[in-house]
Amino acid sequence: MLEKYGHGGDLLTAAELYGEGSGAFVDFSANINPLGPPPGVLDLLRNSLSVVTAYPDPGHRRLKSLLAENLGVDNDCITVGNGAAESMALLLLAVKPRKVGIIEPCFSEYRQLAEQFGAEVMSVQGTKEQGYRAGADNIAGLLEQVDLLFLGQPNNPNGVQYALDELRVLAQQAERCGAVLAVDEAFIDFIPEERRQSLLPELGAYRHTVLIRSMTKFYAIPGLRLGFTIAAPELAAAMTGKQVTWSVNGLALLAGEACLRSGREYEERTRGLITAEREALRQGLLRLGCEVPPGEANFLLLGLPAGWSAAAMQERLGRSSILVRSCAMYPGLTPGHIRIAVKGNEDNARLLHQLEATLRAGVKDEGNGRMD
Amino acid sequence: MLEKYGHGGDLLTAAELYGEGSGAFVDFSANINPLGPPPGVLDLLRNSLSVVTAYPDPGHRRLKSLLAENLGVDNDCITVGNGAAESMALLLLAVKPRKVGIIEPCFSEYRQLAEQFGAEVMSVQGTKEQGYRAGADNIAGLLEQVDLLFLGQPNNPNGVQYALDELRVLAQQAERCGAVLAVDEAFIDFIPEERRQSLLPELGAYRHTVLIRSMTKFYAIPGLRLGFTIAAPELAAAMTGKQVTWSVNGLALLAGEACLRSGREYEERTRGLITAEREALRQGLLRLGCEVPPGEANFLLLGLPAGWSAAAMQERLGRSSILVRSCAMYPGLTPGHIRIAVKGNEDNARLLHQLEATLRAGVKDEGNGRMD
Repeated sequence: MLEKYGHGGDLLTAAELYGEGSGAFVDFSANINPLGPPPGVLDLLRNSLSVVTAYPDPGHRRLKSLLAENLGVDNDCITVGNGAAESMALLLLAVKPRKVGIIEPCFSEYRQLAEQFGAEVMSVQGTKEQGYRAGADNIAGLLEQVDLLFLGQPNNPNGVQYALDELRVLAQQAERCGAVLAVDEAFIDFIPEERRQSLLPELGAYRHTVLIRSMTKFYAIPGLRLGFTIAAPELAAAMTGKQVTWSVNGLALLAGEACLRSGREYEERTRGLITAEREALRQGLLRLGCEVPPGEANFLLLGLPAGWSAAAMQERLGRSSILVRSCAMYPGLTPGHIRIAVKGNEDNARLLHQLEATLRAGVKDEGNGRMD
Repeated sequence: MLEKYGHGGDLLTAAELYGEGSGAFVDFSANINPLGPPPGVLDLLRNSLSVVTAYPDPGHRRLKSLLAENLGVDNDCITVGNGAAESMALLLLAVKPRKVGIIEPCFSEYRQLAEQFGAEVMSVQGTKEQGYRAGADNIAGLLEQVDLLFLGQPNNPNGVQYALDELRVLAQQAERCGAVLAVDEAFIDFIPEERRQSLLPELGAYRHTVLIRSMTKFYAIPGLRLGFTIAAPELAAAMTGKQVTWSVNGLALLAGEACLRSGREYEERTRGLITAEREALRQGLLRLGCEVPPGEANFLLLGLPAGWSAAAMQERLGRSSILVRSCAMYPGLTPGHIRIAVKGNEDNARLLHQLEATLRAGVKDEGNGRMD
């Protein structure tokens, strides 16, 4: 199985499984900006490598100031993390929840980290009819019972957003019941601003809501690790208080600053590309008989045509140097669900072509790699 | 104060305090190999920057294999960390000690991390007469009372080693009483092999002893963050189980592999340089009237001549673009203690020269910057 460590993007395991060099794959299993880092960022790192010979700033001061300025919040609302995964861990360490709520299907780290830090996990289930969203009442009922609730906005692996009104009701409820609402906005930068449903502009009203953001996906620097959270100063300070000194490395800080300074053109170009390519990819997948709930992020969840398992398809595509994420292990999804990143036009066409060829070959070659 | 975040090496705070660009300082406050990274490592990173656009290997497989091979232990004894500081945090999360023992003066993170994760800290005190080592009986008594004990080998900030016999007795005691003995060998690579006192060759006999190592100091890559631990497979697995996915970044993994492959010539040259320069530096400091207990690491603890405070000296040297680490806040040391890294001959000479000039000027300019 490609998801040996529970995630996509594992090129080394892919190389072990499919017998290629790890650089040879077209990787649809990790949701990274297909444009790569903003222009100039890799050059800047190349010319700044001497920063690795000094300790990183333990206070993340320059990046924090830039983030605060960009987002229109105070410096002390920001906690910079060694990837959004560390941000989630810091939140768990700061809040010390006995019970954590999640909405399945969702990013597997919510459950894994919660259990890792000793919390009991409670969940509600998104339904197929709502594109794997859960009903607002169900989420509210869950929030009432837990100390911390993770909600993906847009949610991974289905890419749907909750409406701002729904989020607002939850944030207000969190204030009343004292639970913490953690809105994971790791992929929200991929959504055009006019369609984005974020509590950010009104976050000052909520002491119990925290927004989690990633800089590694949108800016295509997952190897460097960089995320951050926005929260009330008390909660932000509690998170920072749990952080290991220097956990954010010097090149990540430098790259983060450069990404934020890179300007809007790259950001708009990314969102334009993703929006157009996602729709084209979805239409192509529908034509191949896949079931594809509409999503707004830079990835698509899809159900393979009847009889096909994610495992078989992943294996066959893998042998053609194309990596996809099996979603068979997500509670509430089926053994025939996979997730694919939206990449550039050429890569997407290659995926569609190979998927079609595999589906056709499967029909000719009955029973081989099929579920039944 | 330069140690705003509790540590040396904070060039940004130095720039704020002393009004220079952060690149302008000769930094004796952080204990980094003065030779810089092994030849070719920065070039390798420069030519491999595309690794930042993919997720790092969450299993650290290549680096772990190389470390295991180099150290002559099994792969499953190694846990790679985002710096030795993360390694310490993982140990605390895995062991969940109610009481943690430390030997003052020591690396401040032992206490900070222990308290951060909710443990009570108990300590014994090293004595001036023994170069700030504690007596073996005192340490044994402490180990009896705690769940986890940190011991620096060589210890920071004084640079002394405990004898292998003493360590062996403690490791055996840990087996009997069930406490974990954490030997912090972050600086042990700087000690010539024939003088090194390490439990590594006999570690297989101890299920309750863990060795903590750093790759950032000896290989001069503190900006990248890289450390690891060696322990019995059960303890190693418990630590890995507490680690946040992808916490070690891709360039750190790559640099770590390159450093291990860089060969013995650089390592021997480093140890030769440090041994010679440390002795010369110590003699120079003694001539200036400082009190300098002999240490075996790449740094020296020193007591300034009577009447001089670390704060005043740090300030004056800082204004000459030289950074030193105040040790005034270490329990058991005095307001006149500082720590300096051993650097190359030219830098060390510059430090001695500036220190001498400052001490002389201080006499002419009485009361100014002096303690009394």
